[in-house]
Amino acid sequence: MHPFDRLTLETLRAKSCLKWTHYSALQGARDVLPLWVADMDFPPAQAIIGALEARARSGNLGYPAGYPGGEPGLQAAVAAWLDARHGWRVAESDIWPLHGVIPGLYLGVRALASSGEAVVLQPPLYPPFMAAVADTGRETQHNPLVWTGTQWAFDLDQLDALIRPHTRALVLCNPHNPTGRVFSREELAALAELVLRHRLWVISDELHSDLVYPGAQHVPFASLGDEVAERTVTLLGPTKSFNLAGLKVGFVITQNAALRKRLERLGAGLVTPPNVMAQAAARAAYTQGAGWLEDTLAYLQRNRDLVTRFVEAYLPGSAYAPPEGTYLAWLDLRGLGLGETLYERLLACGVGLSEGRHNGPGGEGFARLNFATTTTILEEALERLRGGLRLG
Amino acid sequence: MHPFDRLTLETLRAKSCLKWTHYSALQGARDVLPLWVADMDFPPAQAIIGALEARARSGNLGYPAGYPGGEPGLQAAVAAWLDARHGWRVAESDIWPLHGVIPGLYLGVRALASSGEAVVLQPPLYPPFMAAVADTGRETQHNPLVWTGTQWAFDLDQLDALIRPHTRALVLCNPHNPTGRVFSREELAALAELVLRHRLWVISDELHSDLVYPGAQHVPFASLGDEVAERTVTLLGPTKSFNLAGLKVGFVITQNAALRKRLERLGAGLVTPPNVMAQAAARAAYTQGAGWLEDTLAYLQRNRDLVTRFVEAYLPGSAYAPPEGTYLAWLDLRGLGLGETLYERLLACGVGLSEGRHNGPGGEGFARLNFATTTTILEEALERLRGGLRLG
Repeated sequence: MHPFDRLTLETLRAKSCLKWTHYSALQGARDVLPLWVADMDFPPAQAIIGALEARARSGNLGYPAGYPGGEPGLQAAVAAWLDARHGWRVAESDIWPLHGVIPGLYLGVRALASSGEAVVLQPPLYPPFMAAVADTGRETQHNPLVWTGTQWAFDLDQLDALIRPHTRALVLCNPHNPTGRVFSREELAALAELVLRHRLWVISDELHSDLVYPGAQHVPFASLGDEVAERTVTLLGPTKSFNLAGLKVGFVITQNAALRKRLERLGAGLVTPPNVMAQAAARAAYTQGAGWLEDTLAYLQRNRDLVTRFVEAYLPGSAYAPPEGTYLAWLDLRGLGLGETLYERLLACGVGLSEGRHNGPGGEGFARLNFATTTTILEEALERLRGGLRLG
Repeated sequence: MHPFDRLTLETLRAKSCLKWTHYSALQGARDVLPLWVADMDFPPAQAIIGALEARARSGNLGYPAGYPGGEPGLQAAVAAWLDARHGWRVAESDIWPLHGVIPGLYLGVRALASSGEAVVLQPPLYPPFMAAVADTGRETQHNPLVWTGTQWAFDLDQLDALIRPHTRALVLCNPHNPTGRVFSREELAALAELVLRHRLWVISDELHSDLVYPGAQHVPFASLGDEVAERTVTLLGPTKSFNLAGLKVGFVITQNAALRKRLERLGAGLVTPPNVMAQAAARAAYTQGAGWLEDTLAYLQRNRDLVTRFVEAYLPGSAYAPPEGTYLAWLDLRGLGLGETLYERLLACGVGLSEGRHNGPGGEGFARLNFATTTTILEEALERLRGGLRLG
């Protein structure tokens, strides 16, 4: 029995966290299994918990050595991890620790396109990407992913035709949330060719890059070549892989000194490094977390396969490919013909999924299922969906 | 013997923190007693350490309940503290938790003055205040504090004459860093009258408001009346009082819904709530920290009195008044006639002080001494200054 299998519904229901309190706070939704927001139900690695406890116990909670930057060893830990895990060599000084990934996204949008200029998004995608473009007064150009019959893919012809003189930047999300795609080197190289040809800038969200299953390989977009690196702002961090979203820590990687300066100027006073606890956790994750991550990935992979068998059995012919990365499955429920009532019906099944209609154009009729829960809970949730939606 | 007196130089020198590593990293400055950056050398309250350990041990480090705002109970703890300690009633919803006080300062400057408009600063002051105005392209108008012969005070006539049609906002720092002044209700009321008359906005930094010695009383600027509250952005937090600068947590208080919205819009995506560890620490500080704080204040008061006796004995006639709040003493060393060489000479004494020349106009010839260290270290530092500067 895997330790994660010992987690009970009672324990999780008592947890004071967004994932488990959201539905129980909704009237009439007390028995919902919450497979929505991108947290895992599993406790983080003991090495991370131990590092946090040790830092607390030290009483050393003032201005850290290395202030206003990261503490000594933080960037080195990230650089070593990227090299070991993804074969990507990044200078420590090109790694900028921040109090989250979203601040890096907003800075990137501000830095790479001026007000009124356009940024390309490739929906379906994580709603804050759309907010980042809208909130900053940039124009959004949507280049939706296309379903090839076997997987979700970039539509480069559509993108090529979409680009206007005022199109400045493109947001890439790889591994992709919500579809779970891990784009291949060939797909990324073709995108890079187009990006360079049009002199676009790229914000590459690679937050899920450590959550990749056997058979797929994460390729950092900026690793495709010096010219690509020059035009790319990469966002990553330990919060998804190591289940630490509440610690607020991310890294912005830019291999372009002028661009880094521009980002820093735009963020002056508003963005900060992560706090000392988050720094301690990130260092522990990247230096001691690999074993926990491999074990967790193996567990997640079994859950992913459960979801895949469910889709094959009960949603045949739907636009679904087994996620190559992330712990998110993008379920195509358009075939149920429920239209506007789909999301109510899902909730009535007693399962809390993220509503695809919030993921941009093309998301209507889809739902995102977070399978980072116990296998028992996942099985129960799938059974509820089968029964409640009268599948099969 | 007070537990703080058990802290040894060896323990402190081994601490990986900015205060203690800065000078030891400088060539030839290995034996410097660092009484500079505003951290205390004391360990934080056990209740805070315990809250951090408990949160770590819980493994509950994902998206918190209450996301994207603070966790349940956080604002309530701040509101109860402000009421109990300062008699200031603030609605929980007017308390905005952020990942530091500096982000609130930068947002305030951006929100209250447009690019090219002017902000009044009252130096000497904490250098980031000057940076916040300069970095955001606002014009700085300096209204230096004046030495009345017995204390530092606002110069309201000078301020009245200084204000131009494009003057929009004033930054108040109370209790005042670096002078340790705690401005009286009368002084603040007179300032408020002028502020209202000129329809200025105020950013009131009250970060040191819990560090006030008997005989003085902190008066929140916004508590002076509804009209004043409408025009004030108050910044405060537990990081100074409870020695938690590395945890990055601050609170922005605005009792003006339109202004709060404007601040939120300007910070969209760039500012975030403090992380879950910082929230746990802040809640513990405000609900269980009062005893520790009283004890620490008593210890600090004895150190303050040591500094005062030193100044009376060796720097008679200098512009010095015993700090009414903060653990900072503003030493007037102009009488030594050392000119440009003052700061080298101080360092040569083996004492690391903050150089007054970085605190804006009028700071030349002054130095800020942080007396939040053990009495033994403070005595040794004062003795080094006496010998090295050939005082008395």
